[in-house]
Order: sequence, then structure tokens, then C-alpha cells
Amino acid sequence: MTVGIVGLGLIGGSMARDLRASGWATQLVGHDARPDHAQQALGLGLVDGIGSLEAVVQCELLILAVPVDALLGLLPRVLDLVGPDTAITDVGSTKAAVCAAVAEHPRRGQFVAAHPMAGTEHSGPAAALLGLFQQKAAILCEAERSTPWAVARVEALYAALGARLVRLGPAEHDEHVAYVSHLSHAISYALAATVLDKEKSTAAIFDLASGGFASTARLAKSHAAMWTPIFLQNAQHLLPIIDAYAAQLARLRALVAAHDATGVDAYIAEANRIRRVLDGKA
Amino acid sequence: MTVGIVGLGLIGGSMARDLRASGWATQLVGHDARPDHAQQALGLGLVDGIGSLEAVVQCELLILAVPVDALLGLLPRVLDLVGPDTAITDVGSTKAAVCAAVAEHPRRGQFVAAHPMAGTEHSGPAAALLGLFQQKAAILCEAERSTPWAVARVEALYAALGARLVRLGPAEHDEHVAYVSHLSHAISYALAATVLDKEKSTAAIFDLASGGFASTARLAKSHAAMWTPIFLQNAQHLLPIIDAYAAQLARLRALVAAHDATGVDAYIAEANRIRRVLDGKA
Repeated sequence: MTVGIVGLGLIGGSMARDLRASGWATQLVGHDARPDHAQQALGLGLVDGIGSLEAVVQCELLILAVPVDALLGLLPRVLDLVGPDTAITDVGSTKAAVCAAVAEHPRRGQFVAAHPMAGTEHSGPAAALLGLFQQKAAILCEAERSTPWAVARVEALYAALGARLVRLGPAEHDEHVAYVSHLSHAISYALAATVLDKEKSTAAIFDLASGGFASTARLAKSHAAMWTPIFLQNAQHLLPIIDAYAAQLARLRALVAAHDATGVDAYIAEANRIRRVLDGKA
Repeated sequence: MTVGIVGLGLIGGSMARDLRASGWATQLVGHDARPDHAQQALGLGLVDGIGSLEAVVQCELLILAVPVDALLGLLPRVLDLVGPDTAITDVGSTKAAVCAAVAEHPRRGQFVAAHPMAGTEHSGPAAALLGLFQQKAAILCEAERSTPWAVARVEALYAALGARLVRLGPAEHDEHVAYVSHLSHAISYALAATVLDKEKSTAAIFDLASGGFASTARLAKSHAAMWTPIFLQNAQHLLPIIDAYAAQLARLRALVAAHDATGVDAYIAEANRIRRVLDGKA
């Protein structure tokens, strides 16, 4: 399979690593809007070569691994450029906007909307990891709007990456990931902002930060180039979920303020049920 | 040094592991209010033997590793029982309440208030880890109210555990740890509660939970027996910090609601400064 990847960051670069290592990609051509990232990816051996957008659209499979705001402009342009035998997929963390953007495009069927649920807080070609998608969920959205051969090609891609496929509608996808991914990022950014703000008056505060803080604040390292467009595109779902979260936090706060030990015990015991999920027994 | 440990859970048990392995403790006697935990600790080889409270107070150094609510009753009782040559220390995550509880005790000088900033989300003797305190901060509070030989003994304990000592006043301690530890736990419990509540109507939601969710929700596995008393004893500091955090989250929410990309970019860039802390360059 000849594969083109536009966007050689964490996700595009990690896919490239796996597809080259396994030999699934017989040829792998990359493209990146940032020439330094393209050269870095080539230097790291992520891709066989770097090509123009006009060159990468010649591949049998084209993966668009760019931030979700850039994707909305890029995808229609790419659909205009490709021949009839190329399948195109994306990796974006929001799905309703991109599906809407190409709903009426004459080549809509060649596009398969996808979202592999994997990542780290790092970005750029140097952050690419072998095996990032192993055992992870990859979501296909409104695959019924894609032609079967294009869907089969993207299913083969995720099989090669070791991911398991889940099918969801775009709105359902966007709400689910707002709960289990986007909310975690919002929470973590707000934690970092709160403690960094306190640090302005209390220099030594981070001297005491332990593993629990590091784990909760880790996602706050994630870059705005990826996350601002996700938050804005998914505002419809994210905002009410932030409200539900704020209400839960307010409920805990009220129990603590009332010195209601029984109530706090019950709240924590309920939250402890997350153990089942985190320990992989969901 | 003969060492007694009351409370053979994660913290007491981990200290026991290190002190036995290094030989720093020439004899190590444990005590636990739960006979099953005491037997489990003995079976795991954490301690040389199990003794009554009257027996463990005979040691040269007595470590009280119990939840902070139990500590307020236990410490005065232990100070009543000990001879004049025993140093006593605790490991509690709140310090103002325990310092106040024994401020007027005639043997106050034999007590050294301490808090090693280490732990995991697990509990009980089986959760005990070798090397848990290596490179971690251990805080001594109002050491000026302890007699110098007792302080020296506790300093030697933390040197043997590989921790670095920090001195803080009890109120300052309680505020600092509310920011860098207690808040993270409150946030994580509220996240778990929010998503578990949603799961009641949307069964498959956790199918999509990825590493970012796991990292943010990890602390929500922590047990109420430890954390309810911490929250209640530190309500004075925790409540305003939860309010500051809620205000930061509301600020992010407002930027997203206004579709203010520049504002969200700036918020995230500011939060990204946590990288410096998490990458150990604080």
C-alpha cells in the first residue's frame, strides 16, 4: 500500500513509524506545512520521502493528521485534488465539523472519518512512538457515507496498527470524547493555571508537588495548536459537560464545607468505582 | 534503632520495608487496629513482630502512620504512655490539627510533626513499596517545639529513607499541600463522579477512555478512610482553593463559549508553563 501522511507530528509520525516498521506501507511519503518538521521527520526515518500536497494525493491511502481547524480547510482541498482510487482518512478528535464540511462533496465517499484514541502530552515528529495505537480504540464515524473499498482500506490500516475499531455517529463521538478526553484536558489546564497563579505569591509551592499532582497536571503540557481548535469545535458538547463537572465539584465542596464525613465518605466510595474502569475491567 | 510503627498500610508498610532492608531498624515492631492487616504485614515480612500499643511505645522511635482523624486521638494517648527516651513522629497530610491537639501536652517535645510527600492511590500492607520516599520531600512542622534529640532521630529516619527535608509552619504546610496534593484529589474524584454518572445513561462511554483520562482520574481510586479526614481537617485551606480552581475553570469555559481562539490559546500557553515543574526544572 502506498501511503501519504499530511502532518508529521505525534499522531502522523507514530503511524508512519508503525507502517514502515511492519512493511505495511510499501512507500510512505510525508508532507508538513512546517518545513522544519518535514526535514526532522525525514531525518528520523519516519517517512521514505517528503512531497508536495500534489504528490502525496497520488498515494492509495492518504492520512490527514493535522489539527482539527486546519483539517476543515485541508480536506475539501484534498478531495478536489485526488484521483478516484485514493482513500482519505483523518485522525481528528472532533468529528461532526469535519463530516459536515464535506457532506456535499462529490468525492465524499472516498473519505473515511476516523479518530484513533491514543496520544501523549508531547507533540512534533520527535514525539512519534512505535506501537502507540496497539490495543487502543479507533473510531470510524458515519462509515455508511464512505464507499466500501475506502472503509476496507482504513480498516486494514487500523488492523496493521493493532487498534480495535468502534463505529459511532459524529455527534455521539463528539459527546463521548468530550467526557473521557476533552474534559480531562480542560480540568488539567485549570489545575495548572490555579497552582501557577498561586506560585506568583508563594515561590516554594512546587517544592512539595508529588506524583499525584504530576499525574493530574500532565495533560496541561499539551499544546494549544492541537487543543484550542478541539475545544472550540466541540464547544456544544464540552460546555454542558464542564457544567456537570463543576456541579459535581461543588457537591463535594458543599459536603466538605458542612463537615459531613458520611457524605464525603459516600462521595469518595462512589468515585472509587472508577477503579473498575482504570484497572481494565470495564 | 528500635522502631515501632502503628498503622501498617501503604506509608507505614513502605517505611518498614526500607528500614528493614537497610538494617537501619535493628528491631521493627508493628501494630495495627485491624488484626488482618497486622497479620498480613507480618506475613509479607514488613515487620519483625506485632505488638500491643503498650509494647510498641517501648521503641526508640515510634512512627504513627494512621489516618489523620485517628491520629488526633492516638497521639495524646501515646504521649501519655511513652517513657522519656522515645521519639514519636507522624506522617499525616494535615499538620495544624495534630500540632494543636498536643500543643499543651507535657511530653510535646518528644513529638516531631512530619509529612513525607509520597504515596500511591493504593492502600493496605500489600501496597507497601521499597524506595517510596527516595528523592521525595519530607516536611517537618514546628520542629522548634520538639526537643533536639527527637528532631535528630526523625531527621536520621528520613535520611535513611532517602528523602530530603523541608521545614514549614503547620498553617503554611496545610495551605501548600492543599494546592499541590489535596486539590488534585478533589478534582479527580469529581471527574470520576461526572463520568460515572454519565455512564448510567451511556453504557459504552468508557470504551473510549484513553491514557489521558486514566492519568487524570487515577487519584479517584484513593480510599475514603484516608481522604475524608484530610479534606475535613484541611477544609479551611481546601475550600478557598477549590473556589480559585472553579474560577479558573469558569474562565476557560467562558473563553470557549465565546469562541475566543486567541484567549484559549493564551490560557493554554500559560498552563503549559507547568511543563517546567513537571519536567523537574522547578
